[in-house]
Order: sequence, then C-alpha cells, then structure tokens
Amino acid sequence: MTNAPRRIGVLTGGGDCPGLNAVIRAVTKTAIFDYGMEVIGIEDGYRGLIENRMHPLTSLDVSNILTRGGTILGTCNRSNPSHFATGLDDNGQPVFADVTEQCIRHLRERQIDALVVIGGDGTMACTRPFAERGINCIGVPKTIDNDLPGTDLTFGFTTAVDTATDALDRIHSTAASHHRVMVVEVMGRNAGWIALHAGVASGSDVILVPEIPYDLRCICEFVEDRSRHGKRFSIVCISEGARPATGEQVVARIDPTSPDPVRLGGIGEKLADDIAATTGLETRTTVLGHVQRGGSPVPSDRVLGTRFGHHALELLAAGERNRLVVQRDGEITDIDLGSMETGQRLVPLDDPLIAAARAVGTCFGDTSA
Amino acid sequence: MTNAPRRIGVLTGGGDCPGLNAVIRAVTKTAIFDYGMEVIGIEDGYRGLIENRMHPLTSLDVSNILTRGGTILGTCNRSNPSHFATGLDDNGQPVFADVTEQCIRHLRERQIDALVVIGGDGTMACTRPFAERGINCIGVPKTIDNDLPGTDLTFGFTTAVDTATDALDRIHSTAASHHRVMVVEVMGRNAGWIALHAGVASGSDVILVPEIPYDLRCICEFVEDRSRHGKRFSIVCISEGARPATGEQVVARIDPTSPDPVRLGGIGEKLADDIAATTGLETRTTVLGHVQRGGSPVPSDRVLGTRFGHHALELLAAGERNRLVVQRDGEITDIDLGSMETGQRLVPLDDPLIAAARAVGTCFGDTSA
Amino acid sequence: MTNAPRRIGVLTGGGDCPGLNAVIRAVTKTAIFDYGMEVIGIEDGYRGLIENRMHPLTSLDVSNILTRGGTILGTCNRSNPSHFATGLDDNGQPVFADVTEQCIRHLRERQIDALVVIGGDGTMACTRPFAERGINCIGVPKTIDNDLPGTDLTFGFTTAVDTATDALDRIHSTAASHHRVMVVEVMGRNAGWIALHAGVASGSDVILVPEIPYDLRCICEFVEDRSRHGKRFSIVCISEGARPATGEQVVARIDPTSPDPVRLGGIGEKLADDIAATTGLETRTTVLGHVQRGGSPVPSDRVLGTRFGHHALELLAAGERNRLVVQRDGEITDIDLGSMETGQRLVPLDDPLIAAARAVGTCFGDTSA
Amino acid sequence: MTNAPRRIGVLTGGGDCPGLNAVIRAVTKTAIFDYGMEVIGIEDGYRGLIENRMHPLTSLDVSNILTRGGTILGTCNRSNPSHFATGLDDNGQPVFADVTEQCIRHLRERQIDALVVIGGDGTMACTRPFAERGINCIGVPKTIDNDLPGTDLTFGFTTAVDTATDALDRIHSTAASHHRVMVVEVMGRNAGWIALHAGVASGSDVILVPEIPYDLRCICEFVEDRSRHGKRFSIVCISEGARPATGEQVVARIDPTSPDPVRLGGIGEKLADDIAATTGLETRTTVLGHVQRGGSPVPSDRVLGTRFGHHALELLAAGERNRLVVQRDGEITDIDLGSMETGQRLVPLDDPLIAAARAVGTCFGDTSA
Repeated sequence: MTNAPRRIGVLTGGGDCPGLNAVIRAVTKTAIFDYGMEVIGIEDGYRGLIENRMHPLTSLDVSNILTRGGTILGTCNRSNPSHFATGLDDNGQPVFADVTEQCIRHLRERQIDALVVIGGDGTMACTRPFAERGINCIGVPKTIDNDLPGTDLTFGFTTAVDTATDALDRIHSTAASHHRVMVVEVMGRNAGWIALHAGVASGSDVILVPEIPYDLRCICEFVEDRSRHGKRFSIVCISEGARPATGEQVVARIDPTSPDPVRLGGIGEKLADDIAATTGLETRTTVLGHVQRGGSPVPSDRVLGTRFGHHALELLAAGERNRLVVQRDGEITDIDLGSMETGQRLVPLDDPLIAAARAVGTCFGDTSA
Repeated sequence: MTNAPRRIGVLTGGGDCPGLNAVIRAVTKTAIFDYGMEVIGIEDGYRGLIENRMHPLTSLDVSNILTRGGTILGTCNRSNPSHFATGLDDNGQPVFADVTEQCIRHLRERQIDALVVIGGDGTMACTRPFAERGINCIGVPKTIDNDLPGTDLTFGFTTAVDTATDALDRIHSTAASHHRVMVVEVMGRNAGWIALHAGVASGSDVILVPEIPYDLRCICEFVEDRSRHGKRFSIVCISEGARPATGEQVVARIDPTSPDPVRLGGIGEKLADDIAATTGLETRTTVLGHVQRGGSPVPSDRVLGTRFGHHALELLAAGERNRLVVQRDGEITDIDLGSMETGQRLVPLDDPLIAAARAVGTCFGDTSA
Repeated sequence: MTNAPRRIGVLTGGGDCPGLNAVIRAVTKTAIFDYGMEVIGIEDGYRGLIENRMHPLTSLDVSNILTRGGTILGTCNRSNPSHFATGLDDNGQPVFADVTEQCIRHLRERQIDALVVIGGDGTMACTRPFAERGINCIGVPKTIDNDLPGTDLTFGFTTAVDTATDALDRIHSTAASHHRVMVVEVMGRNAGWIALHAGVASGSDVILVPEIPYDLRCICEFVEDRSRHGKRFSIVCISEGARPATGEQVVARIDPTSPDPVRLGGIGEKLADDIAATTGLETRTTVLGHVQRGGSPVPSDRVLGTRFGHHALELLAAGERNRLVVQRDGEITDIDLGSMETGQRLVPLDDPLIAAARAVGTCFGDTSA
Repeated sequence: MTNAPRRIGVLTGGGDCPGLNAVIRAVTKTAIFDYGMEVIGIEDGYRGLIENRMHPLTSLDVSNILTRGGTILGTCNRSNPSHFATGLDDNGQPVFADVTEQCIRHLRERQIDALVVIGGDGTMACTRPFAERGINCIGVPKTIDNDLPGTDLTFGFTTAVDTATDALDRIHSTAASHHRVMVVEVMGRNAGWIALHAGVASGSDVILVPEIPYDLRCICEFVEDRSRHGKRFSIVCISEGARPATGEQVVARIDPTSPDPVRLGGIGEKLADDIAATTGLETRTTVLGHVQRGGSPVPSDRVLGTRFGHHALELLAAGERNRLVVQRDGEITDIDLGSMETGQRLVPLDDPLIAAARAVGTCFGDTSA
C-alpha cells in the first residue's frame, strides 16, 4: 500500500441512477474499515469541486443508504470544470472559463490524494484533465441505459428495466380490456437496451429500438394481423430514441430551461397517432419518464454497486492509477480510464435476445421477421 | 327467493379499473354456489349486449382472476344503446339509433332475468332505460377517481393511489439528487381524490386539485422559500383537472381517434414551464397516465370488489329491484339505482385531510395556508 | 389555545408497526408549524421516560421518515413505570418498583406539559397513572392486529394485510404446481382480522380465525372434495391464534429469552401435520412472522397515521385532556382515553365479510357453510 | 433442419421455480412459429410420462403465462422412471420398478421425437436412461439455489434473492426499532448463493453460508461489538444449510409425509437461541420458506427463461442431441447433457463478493475478517 492514497474524494455526476448510494457506501466503508483512509464527499458532482463544497464521510453517514435511490452527495448535469459558465457577459450570454486549476487547488487544500468519480461518459470526459494533471482518478461507470462501452453491465439498468416492466405489466390489463394498442415509451436515446429487455420481459408484442429504424407499415400490418386472429390488443414498447426508417423528423417538445434542449416525450405519441391514423384502431400512449431513474435499487444493482465501489478501493489500495471499473464476462475488473470516453455500446443487430424475441413472435418494426 | 332471478347477466362498462374481476368473480360464485343461478357474461360492456355477444360463466371461468387487473369480460367506453352509432350517412357522418329494444330482445332470448351492471356514471345512465322497461338492474359503482356520489369508496381507487404514490416515491430521489422541482400529473379530471391521497401519502410538498384553483405565485413563493431553507427540491402532485385561478386556458393535445376529445397530459407540463419561467429553477414533468388503471388490485380493493359483488347477489336473491351497491360509513349497503346519475363527489374544501396536509406543511397553491 | 401545552413529549410503545413514523411526523410538524409548540422525542417507549433519555424533535428530524417502517424513536415491549424491574434480589429474581414519580419528575424537569402516547392496550394501561397525576395524555392507538376496541381501523393493519396477501399470492403458484396443501400462518393471537382480510384478498380456500374454533374433519373433507373436483391444491390461511374446536393443547416452542413466553409458530405446523396424517395429501407450512410488522407502510396507512397524529395535536391545541384518537364510521374522532383499556375487538361471527367469503366458496373450518 | 424433430415433448421436474413458464412459452412459441413443430406438454414431470398424461400445447396455451410463477404443466418431486413406486408389498412397503420402457412406449405412441426437460440434477439423472435409449433430450437447468455445475446462472435465483431481500428489508425496521438481533433463514441446503446475494443486497450484518462453518463466539462478539458502538440491533442472514464449525448436530423437525425427510426450519432458530443464551440480547427468527419459490419472476428471470427455452429449440432445430443449455460468461450456450449430473456449484471461499462484503463490514461467522 505504499502508493495508496490517505484521503480520497468521491463524487457522483450526471443523471441520478439507482445504486449510486451502494457505490458511495462501499467506497466509504472499504476505505475506512479496510485501509484506514479518510473519505471526503464532494457535493453535486463537479460543481461541488468547483465551489469547494465537500464534507467528510464517516461510516455512519453511509449507514442505511444501500436501499435508497438517488445519491446522498447530490449530482449535477452541467458543470464541466474545463468549460464552466462563470457568469454572463454584457449581452446576457454566459461566459465560460476553465476552472480546473481552481478545482485542483481545492483538492490540494484538503489533502485529497485521489478521486473516485462515479458517472457517465460526460462526467468521465470532465475527469480526464484531472488525471492529466496528476490527480489519480478511478472511474465507476454509471448509466441507466447500459450503453457505456467497456462494461457489459452498469448498476441502475436492471432497476430501470424492472420499473419499465412493471408499468408494461400494468398496462397489459388495460390494453386487453379495451382492445387497444398501447404505446409505452421507455428510456434510451441512442441504445435500445431498456426497451429490448423490458419488452421481452413483459411479452410486448412490438419492440422498437433506435438501432432498428422502424417501418410504420410493418407495425400496422402486424397489429392488424393480431386483431384478425382474435388478439384485439397490442403492446408496443418503444425507446425514446427510436425513429422511423423514413428519416422523418419527429416534432418534439423542448424543455425551455435547458441549455441543450431535452425532448420531453415525442416519438411514442407520434407512433400512436400514426398507428391510429393508419389502422383506425384505438391507441393510447404512456411516457414513463423519470420514474425509471428512481426508487430503491433492485438487489442485483445493490450488489453490483457494492462490487464496483469495493473494486475501486482495491485499485487505489494497490497503487493503480486512472482505471475504470467494469464488468466483463461476469467478472468485475478494470480498464484504462480513457477507454470509456468514445463511442456507445448499441444493441447489436445480431444480439441473441433479438433472435429469441423474434422467435416468440415479437415484431421489431422491420421486415426481417 | 320467490322473486329471485334464475339467470343473470353481468357486464362491465367504461374505463378499466383494478377490482373489476373481483366483482365478476363474487357475482358468479355467489350466484352459482349460494343461489343456484346461472350467470351469463356480456362481452365489452353494452356493445356486447347490442351485438349479442355473451357466454355462460362457470365458477372455473372466474377461478384465478381475483388478482388480475382489467376485466375478463372486456369493456367499451362508447356504446350507449339509447344512442348507438349504427353506421355512416352519405356525408360520412355517424348515424345514431336507439337499439334498446334489440338489447332487450337479446336478453329475453337468453332468458336473462336480471342484470348486474358494473360501471361509472356513463354506464349507469345507459342502464336507466333497461330498468324502466322492466329489466331488474343492480348497479355496482366503478371509478378510479372515487368521485361517484352515493358511495364513500369505490374499488380501484386505493390501487390507483398506491401506483401514484409508488411513482411519487421513486421521483423523490431524483428530485433530491438533482435539486429539481418535479411535477407529477395524476388522474382526476373533476375531483382531486387521487392527488390528495397520493400527495399526502408521498409527502408531496405541493398538492393541486381541481377543487382549489391554484395561484402560480403562491406555488413559486413556496418552492423558493423551501429552496432558501436548504430544501432545494420540491415535489408537486397535480390532478390532471387542476386549473389556475386565472381561468387561463390550458392548451392540450387532442387524441385524434376519439369522438369526444381526450386530453393527453397538459396541465402538468404547463405548470412545470410556468414554475421554471418564474423561478428559474430546473423543473421536470411526469404524466403517470394509464399505469394508474392497471395492475393487480391491492388487497383492500380485492376485498371491496368481493363485497360489492356479493351484496349485488344478496339484493337479487332478496327480490330487490334497481338498486345501487354502495359503501357508507364503513358498511356495504345500497341505494336507489337512479341516485348515481347526477352530480359528482368532489373533495370538500373543509375535508379534514386537507387540514391535516396543510398542518404538516403542504401547499395547496392557494393563500389559505 | 389558552390551555394548550407549550412543550409536548411523544413516545411509541409496544411492537413496531408500519405508520408509526407517519404519526410522529404529523405530531411534530403540526406542533411546530401550526401551534409553535416544542416537541421532545422520548426514546424506546416508557423505558426512555424512566431512564430520562429524550431529545428535541425538529421538523428536519421528521423529514423523509413518512415512507419508513419502524419508529425513529425506538420502542420497548416491557417497561411499565408502575411495575418496573429495577434490579435482582438475592435469589436472582427481578425486583419491581413503581417509578411513575421518577418519570413525572423527568417530564417536569424538561417542562413537558403533555404527552402523545402511541401504543396498544399495554402501553395505554401504562399511561393511566400519568393521566391520573395530572399529565395530559393523548393516546394514538397502534396495533397490527386491528383488534383494539373503540376504533374501527388502526394504521399498520392494511400494510400487514398487504404483506400477508403478497406471500399468499406467491405461495399459490407453488401449491398449484405441486398439488399441495399449503398452510400459511399469519399474525393474530386473539382476533382473526389479518387472516380474514388477507385470506379473502388472496382467494384462500380455507380461512381459520381464533373466533371460529375449527373442526379438522371439515377442513379435510373440504380439501379432499376440491381434490376430487380437479383442484388438486388448497391454500389455508390461519391466524396464529386459531385453535381446534376440540380444545386440544397446541404444543408450542417457547422463546427462552422472554419473561412472558412467546410462541414461535405452532398452530400452522400442527394443522399441516394433521391434514397430512388424515388425508395423505402433501402439505407444507409457512409462518410469516415478523415480516408482517415491517416495511414501508402502504399509502393508506401513511395517510391514516398522518390524520391520527394531526388530530392528536388538534386536541391538545383545543385544550382537550386525556383523549384517545380513533376512527369511527370513516371519520377521525376521539373518545375518552380510558375506553381502550378493556376488552378486544374480535371478528364478529356475523361479519358480512365472512358471509361474502363463504358465498364465494371459502371454508372457515366449521359446519355452517 | 434434416434431423430436426417434428414433434417434441416438454416437461418440468423438481421443485417449482419462477421462470419455468417463460421457458415453456419460449419452447412452444419457437417450435410452432419458427420451425413448424408440434409441442406436447407432459403433466407433472416424469409422473405424467409414466402415467401417459400429456396434451398438445398451442401458442394460445402459453399466452399470458410469462409473468406467472409456478409451471402450467405441473411438477413432481419424486417420480424417477428408473425407480418408480408401483405399489405396496404384503408388508406395506413400496415396491419399485423400472418403467422407462413404458415411458418410451408412451413417447413413441404419440410420435414424440425429442424431449425438452426442464429440471435440476435429480430430474437430469432421470433423463439419462432416455438419452441412452435414443430419445434426444435437451436439458434446461432449473434451481432456485443457483448451485448447478456447468451454468453460471439459472432462472428463478434472481427472483428468490429479490423475495429474500424484500423480507430482510422489512425486518430491518423491526430490528432497529426494538434493538433486537433478527435471524432470517433463507433457502440454500448446500450452497449459500441466496444468503450471500440477499445478505449483501440488504446490508445484513452477518451472513452465514454452508461453505463457511460458523463460530458462535465470533458472531456473538461481532453483535456485542456493534451494540457497544451504538448499533443496538443486528440482522443475521443464514442459509438453511449453514452449520456451526463444531460439527454439532442440529435438531430439526421432520416432515412426516416425506419419504426423504425434509427439514422445516431448524438452524435459524437454533442460532437465535444460542445468540440469546450467550449474549442476553433479545433475538427473533423468521424462516422465509416457500415464499422464495413463488411469485411472478423478476424481469431478468423472464428474459433468462425465454433465452434458455429459445436456445433449446435452436439446438433441436440444428439436429443437436443430448445437450444442456447453460449460461457461461454472460453467453447462452450448451454443454453435454451428462455434465450436470455430478457435483454442486458451491460458493468459492475466494469469491470476490465475499471479499467485498467483508470490506464493508459484514461478518461471515469466522475469524478471517
């Protein structure tokens, strides 16, 4: 443990995700119990580092948090130290500055030797400058969508699938009772993992993912064919990032408070309208939205978060530098921290689960079935 | 049992609701086991009666349905025998006719002596002409919203509150982690019962119901005041039918397939935008929608459905005519069938639960607090 | 508010129960926000009063506790100030003393004017001497079993029924797959409310409650009759306090650490053995035990706890003395504190829910069916 | 598909397990939709094959079963065709015979070319003679306990962990409110996977598994040490097969109806008594039992069951013979059917999850911590 740090900082960045507290707890307890390190919690992601808001974490602080959603440290979506909005110019436009040195000074003042950074690709990109300036950074990947390259699984994904499946199960009874087509829009802007897994788990009739642009005609024929065979309802599970093969623009509502426009729903309602217009069937849409990020993590996410947090500390204790904790082939291991920054792990078109879903009769909105 | 019917029909009308199957099961089993009656299930509400689609129900048919959402009989929102769309005229406009006699003929042909009608105010209005022409009709009130006059409680309401509370609980962790104002829109077009109960149960900071028009300024001040006192997030639970005191029009999206336009979301997003614009705080909206109607009924709704169904049969066996099963002061009893047809049971402004909620610090968007 | 107290104490006594924290939160917030009172939390029931362990409760202390099971104040089953074990005599036997005056001194020292006591009949019996000596005591009834006289409903009961029903639902699939008789023992030493409600909600085939001594032969004939009609499994939901009509002694395991012997299971296993021996059918037992007391309260228990707590404070603010908060005919009201001390609210043999359950084919182990 | 069967049989053997219906559904739908095969469902495991009870399965028969626990085919624990109890001898002792040929005749009569056998090691042992006599048998491994060699994961395990974790979470509030040691006994006769995962997921203080014989003194010291540091309660999660290092016999209750005695609880109560006797702390035991086998499978078990069933059919369609479907390193693949018959997959003492659990402060009842 010669190179092991004596005092570490921990922060959570990006959107919240069930299991964050499990990581924080495992990091803190392992550091204190096993390695006699001190732990400093940095508040609200990189914003807390910029604004020098941090506080010591004791084992008592992380008692009783394993089962809780969210993050006790707080998080922040838009606080990149390399490009931080420090104020407004004369025209009311934000002025950006690189405040990395200021952050490093805050770390030095508190004698923090290393950082455990729990976040997604955006947060890891913010982390690189710190690693380059000699701060040892251990990354723990976080995404609801399970689309980070380098790791087969991330905590929070299984909980999100669970929440989405529960909603799809509930909607099933309405669909069947009313003979309706029910469209349920789940998370997944670029990758369809949640839609694929929740769709298969709920026995959805149609699953639409961003990786397979859909053909409205295929979907309508499928739904009408079911109707002709006495199944007068259908459940469509659609990723928020799914798109028609036509490349048609999806009109979307914009969040006025967000610098980078965030779509609030959109494709689910469009598809429901299109199906209704084409088939004359009664359709309804539900956009699951934020409920998918919340709630107590399912047990396997609590376990995965604990393992990720523990492994991060093992790396620090072993003197490893700038690693990213990952799960590969069922094992917890680690790769170079830089590995996560590029690309996205999409659902491969030959994923065996797609084949299995097609075999049990699921329509993916294309003509391969 | 001299006047008791020998063969009864049962139908479910209107939107689906957890507990419908509990009623169907209790009606069927009580009829068969206790009174040796036969039971005919009418498919898809009054539409099945019009189209002569019905089938015998045995005790085996209703085995294993107690825990299931929806209705095994199917339902239909828009099939009033007094005013039924029988086709289109030359201009493509629907032609309506009164097909009540045709329905009565279908009942006579099958020797059905009485009807158990499970539905809301719309379905009960459809039922009146049958009662007037001598068909003995026993009504069982059904509404997710708990706003039917005459009965203190309806099955399905507690399940809907449970589903809404679960979603509010989940969203709490996101709100707290991100320091956001989260607006959650729940069911309730005219009455705020779901918002009131789910809001209190989840400890929502703001509860907005149709009965109390809200003042945006009050809400914003409340939310900012919380923020100043270190609680940098707020949960707003709003009924879909809540409205600002200004009487301002709420722009809403219209379901193009519906003859009577159904709003798909609307007020929740409007309020979130208004709060964001006024306070600058980050806001997000979730519209729970159809998940509130679905899923396995909670135990107390299974019990209530069972009791309602059983009581309906007791009435038939006792030779009672045209009664409506209700719960009053904790007892299952019955009133004249006509009683449900008018009015709506709104949340009284002096409801003690509102007072209790105010006392624990909840804002109702008005200035009475 | 002339007679209203300025500082109140609150304690929770007896077994834990979902909803206790909802009461504590409502008491504390209402006291502080609405009436400017101070609140002192007494730890571990009357034990904390005896040992002078108490601390102020702020509104922040009761934030975020609404959804949590248990009690943040702690509780204690065996600490009656009138008869408190102060030590051991020369023979190692406990010596008891009346330490009521000591408790009153602790209250006076902290200038506590009134007590809110949340507990069952045992706790209320402990409370009487305080009321007699001039301490204003407002009682809030607490019991999982829903068997306290004076109130129609207590918080925690609905959650316990929910937990028991969930377990019965789970066991249903095993019973059906294996063609077994599954006996599930639920709480209820004297009253069968939990067994009755969870039994009806889960569609249990046999429901056995303490109020109806059972005849083994009836149960076996019923189960065999089902088997003959192709239903080769049965679910038996039995209260821990159910007993055979023979008056036969039930051998029970004793908890060695408990002064008053507590039975750990017993009747469920006995019945399963008896059914197996009589019918030759394969049987299995599950004793639900402590899980029924735990977990997050269901929404209606959070609401009921909030209302009870709020009403307790309304009474104090109005200068009322020594009242017990209750629910009657759907209203929250109050009765004399002494009213709860005697008797027990058993399931009446003519309870309409028993009639409804019989009508849908449930066996109660007697010959009235 | 030259060697592919035209008609296949499917059976489920051994204890029930969430996800069985997902396998049956995937097998049936894939066979019918993708390969035009016919599917025959064999009732109650090998017993149905012996007694010639089977029926065709259509895609409609397997609609709506994905979310249901148990098995629609029924199962049977004790029906080995090689050693089947055909009757009783003059002394009332069972007479056993090899009825394999009779089973094969039943298969030939129905022109069943291949079997999909879903079961554990016992069921697979029954399957070998069929494979040896030329029936193509594809095995799908099933065990709640996740202890089958050859596969990293089996469906049902994650659901069982979920159920156990939910119970442990519930019990946490009682433990904390009463300052008790709560012992919760979970499934796992030989392997401690459920206890390990549910224990870590619930943050249990002590986890006891069969693989690590426990030292009572270690446990008591740990629990007392917690108590001294202000944590006056502890949760112990113990496998039913855990044993003290002393090799002491655990007195257990025997199921009188079972040929091979089945223990009903035992070690949990013993441990609780021992802790109480040694430390004087108040202890309570809960034996979760059969609830762990039941209920709707969690989404990932529905997905895994679907993938296993689909892969079984892929093997048959490809003309593969006598294979066992498994998951290895996150992939669905297959091994020789014989591979499962020997040994058991225990928790390795160097399992990284044990290390992670120790690091966050969990006691495993030994002195390695």
